[in-house]
Amino acid sequence: MKSSIGAIQAGDRRALARAISLIEDSRPEGRALLADAYRATGRAHIIGVTGAPGTGKSSLVNVLAQAYRRNGQTVGIIAIDPSSPFSGGALLGDRLRMNDLAGDPGVFIRSMASRGSLGGLARATADVIQLLDAAGFKRVLVETVGAGQSEVEIAGAAHTTIVVEAPGMGDEVQAFKAGLLEIADVLVVNKADREDADRTVLALQAMQALADSGLAMGHYGPQDSPRDEAGAQQDGGWLPPIVKTVAVTGAGVETLRSWIEAHAAYLRSTGAYAERELVRAEHAVRHILSERLTATLLAGLPAGLLESFIEEIVQRKLDPYSAADRLLSANGRNAHRSTFPGEGE
Amino acid sequence: MKSSIGAIQAGDRRALARAISLIEDSRPEGRALLADAYRATGRAHIIGVTGAPGTGKSSLVNVLAQAYRRNGQTVGIIAIDPSSPFSGGALLGDRLRMNDLAGDPGVFIRSMASRGSLGGLARATADVIQLLDAAGFKRVLVETVGAGQSEVEIAGAAHTTIVVEAPGMGDEVQAFKAGLLEIADVLVVNKADREDADRTVLALQAMQALADSGLAMGHYGPQDSPRDEAGAQQDGGWLPPIVKTVAVTGAGVETLRSWIEAHAAYLRSTGAYAERELVRAEHAVRHILSERLTATLLAGLPAGLLESFIEEIVQRKLDPYSAADRLLSANGRNAHRSTFPGEGE
Repeated sequence: MKSSIGAIQAGDRRALARAISLIEDSRPEGRALLADAYRATGRAHIIGVTGAPGTGKSSLVNVLAQAYRRNGQTVGIIAIDPSSPFSGGALLGDRLRMNDLAGDPGVFIRSMASRGSLGGLARATADVIQLLDAAGFKRVLVETVGAGQSEVEIAGAAHTTIVVEAPGMGDEVQAFKAGLLEIADVLVVNKADREDADRTVLALQAMQALADSGLAMGHYGPQDSPRDEAGAQQDGGWLPPIVKTVAVTGAGVETLRSWIEAHAAYLRSTGAYAERELVRAEHAVRHILSERLTATLLAGLPAGLLESFIEEIVQRKLDPYSAADRLLSANGRNAHRSTFPGEGE
Repeated sequence: MKSSIGAIQAGDRRALARAISLIEDSRPEGRALLADAYRATGRAHIIGVTGAPGTGKSSLVNVLAQAYRRNGQTVGIIAIDPSSPFSGGALLGDRLRMNDLAGDPGVFIRSMASRGSLGGLARATADVIQLLDAAGFKRVLVETVGAGQSEVEIAGAAHTTIVVEAPGMGDEVQAFKAGLLEIADVLVVNKADREDADRTVLALQAMQALADSGLAMGHYGPQDSPRDEAGAQQDGGWLPPIVKTVAVTGAGVETLRSWIEAHAAYLRSTGAYAERELVRAEHAVRHILSERLTATLLAGLPAGLLESFIEEIVQRKLDPYSAADRLLSANGRNAHRSTFPGEGE
């Protein structure tokens, strides 16, 4: 295992890919690797990219990665696929776009399926981010689709969250993106060569004004340069800039990259970075604890007890909360024996 | 409390609304109410309605509820809002559409915010479904946005899941809906008066063919009547029909309603219904257990221990998995005292 983390840090891509698979499969070897890797983390800047389907996120991630490469930074990309195995066509399209980056040793791309990992996707993603960080990638881009709870959780693992919009996506999409607006550190209006792009920018500004109406400040239109950072930090807070991009031509992407870097600098110059790290660490520990405790409890129950309770629930003789109560006290009675076999190495 | 569940069952809407709030806030009174209510559940047919933003789901839920009312059934509606408090505009639009149903005592509408209930949305939604069931609503429609993990979990609480598509939403949306396809019991192409609707139907059929290529069967186009249920049960399985609707005119909505009823009949005539109930009950119990176990463990730790571990994690002196190990064994050492104070009544 030690040699494996050494291999990953030395740039062995196959070792990295194998380690990610171990983590995705919740294998104990993956967990041991992660414990080893953890001490080498904390150096990458994690960038979440999210937004409604159809906004061109994948293309944007692609050109943003190229922009980082031109600036000499290594880039890890994690793409969360909402798709199932049989959606080969659409996925292939995405992957082909990613091919612009293939063969570049400074880039590592991994896609993770959001299906079939019920309850564990956010955790697995956070763990894979740690591995890419330990592997030495200076920027890690995490692309998610949608505003679902797990997507928001994944965004919570990022230092800088980019919310991508596109012009002309209708009213319901407005509601969709309103949910995303509050997690955005940088707002992007992609496909900005469309004629109604400015209307989308105005709509976003109006929503920001509504959201921040407690604060007295101006809002940010697309700008050529983020050097005016004092503005972004007005009132001691960060006001998400709105950046117009055209991913297919690359227009606006350098500006976007600069805003991300400005946000990174802002986080580090204030206490915000340390705060995000604390929240993230607590979330990780709580999640791991709840998984282990449940597994240990269930493993320690008399055979068939859970099943018989579930049968009673289906028959409406028992409700799930009372069933949980009884399982907890059944376990409590065995507490003197082996409630928590310490899993430490 | 007993009187309160009595009031809910007698049709007191304010009592029902109050009970839902108690559940949303995770209050113990809500939990007690739920235990009382549970015995009166199991009679509603739960219908999940999901799909990408912009497909017109809200309008469809609205007209579908009206179709059920015309057929003499009472309807409960739970709309999961991905929006935050400041997205008043868009939400208001949705709610206004719902006004067609306001004032009808056979309809109850509740919207639940997906933000701010991290980890608990799926649980709270399942609980509110139970309450509406106990309150006597014969059909419960649960509307969610997106293909996020929590949305899929919520769909898992439904007996019949409807996935709504709309014509002409681009390639990335194809990938998005591929993820939803496998949870669909009924597929709807809404806005079917658009010229490219048939292309969307064909695309869905192609995806179904790809998914089911292990089976030898035909696929279903929109039909006027679902009476041909033998077809839908070919090979002993259910083949999701594709139904074209125009929510704003109501076209196709009766057909959709009939297909839902056909699916309900199919579930009950096979073992599928009982199977879904078992899975749902087990999921509920596991979720409640993991929440309680974690809360109990954390409450029993020496003051400051969790915080100091989190600090070490942020400093990269400790990884989250090892921290969890140590917290578990710190707790194990106290196991003889009060590991799990039985919470039973």
